[in-house]
Amino acid sequence: MEFDTIAAISTPMGEGAIAIVRLSGDDAIAIADKVYRSPSSKRLRDVQSHTIHYGNIVEPETDQKVEEVMVSLMKGPRTFTREDVVEINCHGGLVTVNRVLQLVLQNGARLADPGEFTKRAFLNGRIDLSQAEAVMDLIRAKTDRAMNVALGQMEGRLSKLIKKLRQEILETLAHVEVNIDYPEYDDVEEMTHRMLVEKATVVKKEIDNLLVTSGQGKILREGLSTVIIGRPNVGKSSLLNSLVHENKAIVTEIPGTTRDVIEEYVNVRGVPLRLVDTAGIRETEDIVERIGVERSRKVLKEADLILLVLNHHEELTIEDIKLFEVIKDMDVIVIINKTDLSRKIDIEKVKEYAKGRPIVTTSLLEEKGIDELEDSIGALFFKGNIQSHDLTYVSNSRHIALLTSASKAIDEVLQGIEAGIPIDIVQIDLTRCWELLGEIIGDSVHESLIDQLFSQFCLGK
Amino acid sequence: MEFDTIAAISTPMGEGAIAIVRLSGDDAIAIADKVYRSPSSKRLRDVQSHTIHYGNIVEPETDQKVEEVMVSLMKGPRTFTREDVVEINCHGGLVTVNRVLQLVLQNGARLADPGEFTKRAFLNGRIDLSQAEAVMDLIRAKTDRAMNVALGQMEGRLSKLIKKLRQEILETLAHVEVNIDYPEYDDVEEMTHRMLVEKATVVKKEIDNLLVTSGQGKILREGLSTVIIGRPNVGKSSLLNSLVHENKAIVTEIPGTTRDVIEEYVNVRGVPLRLVDTAGIRETEDIVERIGVERSRKVLKEADLILLVLNHHEELTIEDIKLFEVIKDMDVIVIINKTDLSRKIDIEKVKEYAKGRPIVTTSLLEEKGIDELEDSIGALFFKGNIQSHDLTYVSNSRHIALLTSASKAIDEVLQGIEAGIPIDIVQIDLTRCWELLGEIIGDSVHESLIDQLFSQFCLGK
Repeated sequence: MEFDTIAAISTPMGEGAIAIVRLSGDDAIAIADKVYRSPSSKRLRDVQSHTIHYGNIVEPETDQKVEEVMVSLMKGPRTFTREDVVEINCHGGLVTVNRVLQLVLQNGARLADPGEFTKRAFLNGRIDLSQAEAVMDLIRAKTDRAMNVALGQMEGRLSKLIKKLRQEILETLAHVEVNIDYPEYDDVEEMTHRMLVEKATVVKKEIDNLLVTSGQGKILREGLSTVIIGRPNVGKSSLLNSLVHENKAIVTEIPGTTRDVIEEYVNVRGVPLRLVDTAGIRETEDIVERIGVERSRKVLKEADLILLVLNHHEELTIEDIKLFEVIKDMDVIVIINKTDLSRKIDIEKVKEYAKGRPIVTTSLLEEKGIDELEDSIGALFFKGNIQSHDLTYVSNSRHIALLTSASKAIDEVLQGIEAGIPIDIVQIDLTRCWELLGEIIGDSVHESLIDQLFSQFCLGK
Repeated sequence: MEFDTIAAISTPMGEGAIAIVRLSGDDAIAIADKVYRSPSSKRLRDVQSHTIHYGNIVEPETDQKVEEVMVSLMKGPRTFTREDVVEINCHGGLVTVNRVLQLVLQNGARLADPGEFTKRAFLNGRIDLSQAEAVMDLIRAKTDRAMNVALGQMEGRLSKLIKKLRQEILETLAHVEVNIDYPEYDDVEEMTHRMLVEKATVVKKEIDNLLVTSGQGKILREGLSTVIIGRPNVGKSSLLNSLVHENKAIVTEIPGTTRDVIEEYVNVRGVPLRLVDTAGIRETEDIVERIGVERSRKVLKEADLILLVLNHHEELTIEDIKLFEVIKDMDVIVIINKTDLSRKIDIEKVKEYAKGRPIVTTSLLEEKGIDELEDSIGALFFKGNIQSHDLTYVSNSRHIALLTSASKAIDEVLQGIEAGIPIDIVQIDLTRCWELLGEIIGDSVHESLIDQLFSQFCLGK
C-alpha cells in the first residue's frame, strides 16, 4: 500500500529529558534531510538503516538552528510501520519539540492522527487488529498482570487461537459444501450432521473458555471499579489513604484531561483497584450525602466492588442497614473499623446482613487488619481459581462482544441441526461465526470501525 | 574520570507512544545485554556504535518477556555524557517502562539523580556549567525567543564571551606580576596603573553590557509575571480569556506538582506573560478581595506587569483610585473596557492618575482593542530598544548575580587605583573578578553548588 508521510510528537506532553518527533512514510528520510544538518555534512539519504546521527535541526531557508538532536533512521520494512521511519530525538522542551514538528510539517509531512502509526502497522500487514489493540492496552496497563495480558495479545497469542478456530470452521464449511455438492452416499446427511455437531461443539467450547477469562481480563485491563461507602466518621478517608499509601498509587493524571469523577489507581495483590470519587471522600468524608442520591446510585451501580465501612465502637444504625440494602446484589467486603476502641457493634447482626460476604475487622488508626483486607480483595477477585500464567485472557470489550455473538451463532448452529433445519441454512450461522471471529483480528471489518478504533489511541503512536 | 553506570526514565511521565530508559556509564552495554534478547541472538557488545536494534527486554532468570523494544547503542565519547550510552525505546506504558527500569537497576545500574546525565557531560568536559544550565533552560523555554536564548547559551556563546574576558584579566594579572617582579624602569608603577585602568575599564564595560541584557533575558526565561486587577465586573475574566484564547496558551502543568498560585502562560508578541492567580479571577471575578489584603499585596509586589481594568461606562470610583495608589511605582497598562457602552468615565482624570503610563481602550465584548493592548505589552517589554537577534542574553539568576559581583570587583579595582592603594592589593580584586566569572562557566566552583544546580534538573536528563 502507499501512504503519505506522517509526523507527530511521540513522547508524552510535559517537560522531560527527551522528546521525540517521529516520521513515517516514503518521504520520511527526504523530509528529515531538508531540516537536518550534520557537522560533517552527511545526508540522511546516504546513511545505513538502523543508525543514529548527531546534528542540528534548522530552518531550511535561513539555516537558523532550532534544536540539537540525535536522528534515528530506520528503513522499511524492518520498522514499526513497515515504512521508512525517522525519529528526531530532541532535548525535551515543549517549545523546541513543537518547532521541530512544525518544521517537518512545513517540509512535506502531514500531522498524524492518533494511533496512525499503529494503524499503518496494521494496514501494512505487520500486525493484526487484536495485536494493534494490545499495543494501546500495553501503554495503558496499570499492573504487571495487565501488562502481561497485553504483551501476550501483542505477541499474537489471541490471534493464533482465533485463527485456529476460524481454520476449523472453514474446513468444516468446506466439508459441508463438498457433501452437499456430491451426495453420492446415502448416509451423507447424517454424517454431515454428526460432523457439524462435533466440530461446532469443539469451537463453542473454545470460545466459551475464552469468555470465561474475560471477566478477569477486563478487570485486569480496566481496573476493578471500587467505591468506599459508610456513614460519616467511620474511617473512609483513612481506608482510602491506607490503600493508596500501602500500595504504590498508579499515576494516571494526564495534563489537559478533565474528568467528572476523580479516580485513584492502586495495585492490591496484583488487582488494579480503581478507587472512584476519592475526591468526594477526601473532601467531605461523606460520599453518599455529598454527591446526591441520583449520582451516588450511578456510581454504586457501576462499581465492581464495594468497601462498606462500619464502626466497631457503635451499634449498627438505620443508615448502616440502608447501605446494606442499597448494595444487596453487589460484590461487597464489609470492614468493621476502629477495633482500637471497645466493641459496641453486634458482629452476629453484621454477619446476618453481610449474607456470607467477607467481613474484615481493622484498626486503621493502629494499622491493623489491612493485610487481611487486601487478602480478601485478592481472593474475591481470583475467586479461588487463580489462572495459570500462560492463559490467554480476553480483556477488550470489543473482543468480548464479538466472542459472545460468535458463541450465540454456534448455539444457533447446534439448535438448528437438532431442529432439523436444512444444512444450507445452518451453514449461514456457521459462516457468521467465522466472520465474527474475523472481526477480532481485523480480517473482516469495516473501515469506519478501524478508524474509530485507532482514534482512541494516543497521539504519536 | 570514572563513574558507575546510571539509569533513568528520560521521557516525561504519562501515557505516550514512546518511553525511553537511558543508561550511561562503563557498564551500560553489559547491563543492557543482560536483559536484552535479540531474535537473531546477537549481543549488544558485538554491535557497532550508533546503531539501533530490535528485540525484547526479558527477566534474565526466567527469560520472561517484559517489553518489545528498540535499543539504541552509542559508545563514548561521541555521546551526550561522553560515556557509553544505551537508550531502551519502549512502547510508552507507565508499568512497562518502570519494569524495564527496575530490571536494569537489578542488573547493575544505579538510579540516576535528577540532572545526572547532564552533570556527567559537564564533569567529563563535554560542556561547561553555563552550557549545562542552558540545557535545562531549553527544556523549560516557554517561547521561541527564550528557546533561542537557551540555544545560544548551549552552543557556548556566553561561555566564549566569559572565557575571553577571563583571558584578558589573566593577561593583565600576568603583566602586573612581571612589572612588580622586575621594576627595572622608573615609570613602571605609573605604566602598570595606566594599563590596569585601561584593561579594567574595557572588562567592566563588557560585563555591564551583558548585565543590560539580563532584565530582558530573565523575563524571556521566566516569563513576565502579570496580574490583572480591577473592581468587580469591569471585565477582568474577559480580559484573561481573550489573552489566553487569542494567544496559544503554553502548557506547563506537570502531574504531581502542586502550586500555591495558579498560573497560565501566554505568548504575547514574543513576550511570555505569566498570568498569576488566574484561578482567583476565574472563580470570583475579584482577585483583590478574594485573596485578602496580605496575599494580594504579595502577589502585586512580585508582579512585573499590572493590567488595571477600568469601566468605560462608570465614573472613576474611590476603589479605582485606591488601586492606582497601590500600584503607583509599578509597570502598569491601564485598560478602559466596555467601550461598547456609553462613556461615563473621565478620560482626563484617568490620564492624570496613569502618570504617563499607557492607556488602552477596549471592548472585550466586541473583541475590540485587543491588538492595541498586545502592542502596548510588546512595546513596554522591549522598551523601544529591540535587541538584535544575535545578542547574547544573560537570563540565569545565578549568572546575573555573579556578573553583578564581578562588576563590583572591577569597580573596586578602579577605585583602588585612584585611591593609590598598593598594586598587590588591587590585584586581589582583579583576581576575584576572574574567579567570579569562572563560576559562571564552572571553572572555579564548589562541588556542593554543582550538586545543587543539577538537582534542579528533571529526572533522566
